[in-house]
Amino acid sequence: MQNRVGARSVQFSSRPKLLSCASTVSRAEGEGPLGSCFDVILEDDKLGAGSFEQAELMMFENTVRLACAKVRLSPSDIGCLLAGDLLNQIITANYGARNLGMPFLGLYGACSTMSESLLIGGMLVDGGYLSPVACVSCSHFSTAERQYRFPLELGTTAPPTSQRTVTGAGCLLVGDALPETPMLSHCVITGATVGKVIDLGITDANNMGAAMAPAACDTIVTHFADTGRRPEDYDLIVTGDLGKFGTEMLHRLLQKQGLGLAGRHVDCGNLIYPPEPKYDCGGSGCGCSAVTLAGHLLPKLEAGELKRILFIATGALMSPTSSLQGESIPGIAHGVVLESNK
Amino acid sequence: MQNRVGARSVQFSSRPKLLSCASTVSRAEGEGPLGSCFDVILEDDKLGAGSFEQAELMMFENTVRLACAKVRLSPSDIGCLLAGDLLNQIITANYGARNLGMPFLGLYGACSTMSESLLIGGMLVDGGYLSPVACVSCSHFSTAERQYRFPLELGTTAPPTSQRTVTGAGCLLVGDALPETPMLSHCVITGATVGKVIDLGITDANNMGAAMAPAACDTIVTHFADTGRRPEDYDLIVTGDLGKFGTEMLHRLLQKQGLGLAGRHVDCGNLIYPPEPKYDCGGSGCGCSAVTLAGHLLPKLEAGELKRILFIATGALMSPTSSLQGESIPGIAHGVVLESNK
Repeated sequence: MQNRVGARSVQFSSRPKLLSCASTVSRAEGEGPLGSCFDVILEDDKLGAGSFEQAELMMFENTVRLACAKVRLSPSDIGCLLAGDLLNQIITANYGARNLGMPFLGLYGACSTMSESLLIGGMLVDGGYLSPVACVSCSHFSTAERQYRFPLELGTTAPPTSQRTVTGAGCLLVGDALPETPMLSHCVITGATVGKVIDLGITDANNMGAAMAPAACDTIVTHFADTGRRPEDYDLIVTGDLGKFGTEMLHRLLQKQGLGLAGRHVDCGNLIYPPEPKYDCGGSGCGCSAVTLAGHLLPKLEAGELKRILFIATGALMSPTSSLQGESIPGIAHGVVLESNK
Repeated sequence: MQNRVGARSVQFSSRPKLLSCASTVSRAEGEGPLGSCFDVILEDDKLGAGSFEQAELMMFENTVRLACAKVRLSPSDIGCLLAGDLLNQIITANYGARNLGMPFLGLYGACSTMSESLLIGGMLVDGGYLSPVACVSCSHFSTAERQYRFPLELGTTAPPTSQRTVTGAGCLLVGDALPETPMLSHCVITGATVGKVIDLGITDANNMGAAMAPAACDTIVTHFADTGRRPEDYDLIVTGDLGKFGTEMLHRLLQKQGLGLAGRHVDCGNLIYPPEPKYDCGGSGCGCSAVTLAGHLLPKLEAGELKRILFIATGALMSPTSSLQGESIPGIAHGVVLESNK
């Protein structure tokens, strides 16, 4: 196991390259502090389609096509699509893979999908199996809300702990060599830590941050133990979508383990929305960390402003059925290490 | 890309070893022609649990524990669990991963999950990242039926094309070295072909075989084109769960491409049930190909009766929501090559 590092971490010795990225969001995210970073801000989050599910599919597909177009690759040049979303049977990713015609491995890690796809994609490229690969995840407020909680038409008030599902899709292309016209030329993926499912018994489907924080804590602690690194070895430690309360909980859990993050922690859920009371608890959803990575973080790595980050998308593993049956909501978090070689 | 073979196939140069396997089924499968092959035949498919979902989880977890126990490995020795099931948000696999405490990558490929997990698991081991890994998939008639179609209490009659979802769980352990007390010592995984999502416009949720056959055809044709092999180079070409009509359709589609399978094709869906009218169209579900592989095929590879097989689990990518919205049902099929070195 020449590429295994400690219990649950791996290294990508060949340092696979990030070739291109693209992000799409809706108006709410576009009005947030990261608004100017995103490639596409949708005026109409239904994209003129007949259903929100069809709109989510269009957003998924268009974002992947854009990431390919930026480096003049055709979808048929992609060796494998690694993708997932929040809908039952990851139906957005399935139809997206059909429309794009790419070889496809479907993933489900709830909001941890972006780092799960980078982790597996990194291995596919580093191991010399397939390249380039497209790593994608997306979510849509209107499809997720009505699947997981209540019909939108009810106008149900959100409880004070609930985060808002981001409408957004993010795509990163990873490969073993830069294309002729690269978009990114200094970003590489160098390692990863596989997550474990952790369950502290949270049963409140409106408090996802609390459900995911224990898994984020476990992955962070394991990553540093496996690699022998310290938080100071990273410019940023980025969690996916813990939001306000989940972030607080993460810091307390880490403190109990004697680990501080040296002021280097940010959470995508806390970055994405305008400072308005209705967004107070932050964003969530597969798309949240995906668009923040593609739109906000990668340009900083490319410019050399960030040298090394630990990106940990976090997922709450609930299903509408399990919630109704009173089961608890465990979480999972996968970590990937992204570096700038500028 | 030293391990890439053609457009969509990969080779595992180190020939990762299958260390152990285990299978659990319910009474209906136990009464079929393969009944004597399975490790556990459940008398009560509810396992005394409060819900069928809890029963499915117990079946999943017990099967993985059994595969580990057969080679005196503890769940904590497993480097990664690669698993999925048919339930919304693969909730069985999620809770299973939690209970087993294994690092976990959640997959969704519907009934193609068994070969998707072996394909990714093969790369994890072959690339020197993590070992051993547990590849698992499962399904349960009663949880799937009520999620995808109708409440069981309605007693809805099945249309003549509908296959029966297998109640079963299969687990294979793959690793870079044999344990001290091996269960299998002659079975290796040597390559794979990644599937594409293919859609011929089938919209009948009671004719899954027809939805999956085009994807199986595509993967088979691609596998032979990529590797330069012929059907005669395999002792068996095994599809997952096309059932009676899907098998017929596969043969016609292959014929159109000028490819015959030289009498070497079997379908797990056609093998698993007793010859009774109610099972006439065969079995389906993630568990169908998983238990047939673990219970029936691997012992034949281990004994050297089979030298090389192409195992192609097939998935129908439908969701209850997409079916209600009138969308078509695409299919996907991933192929893995298993060999005997006896």
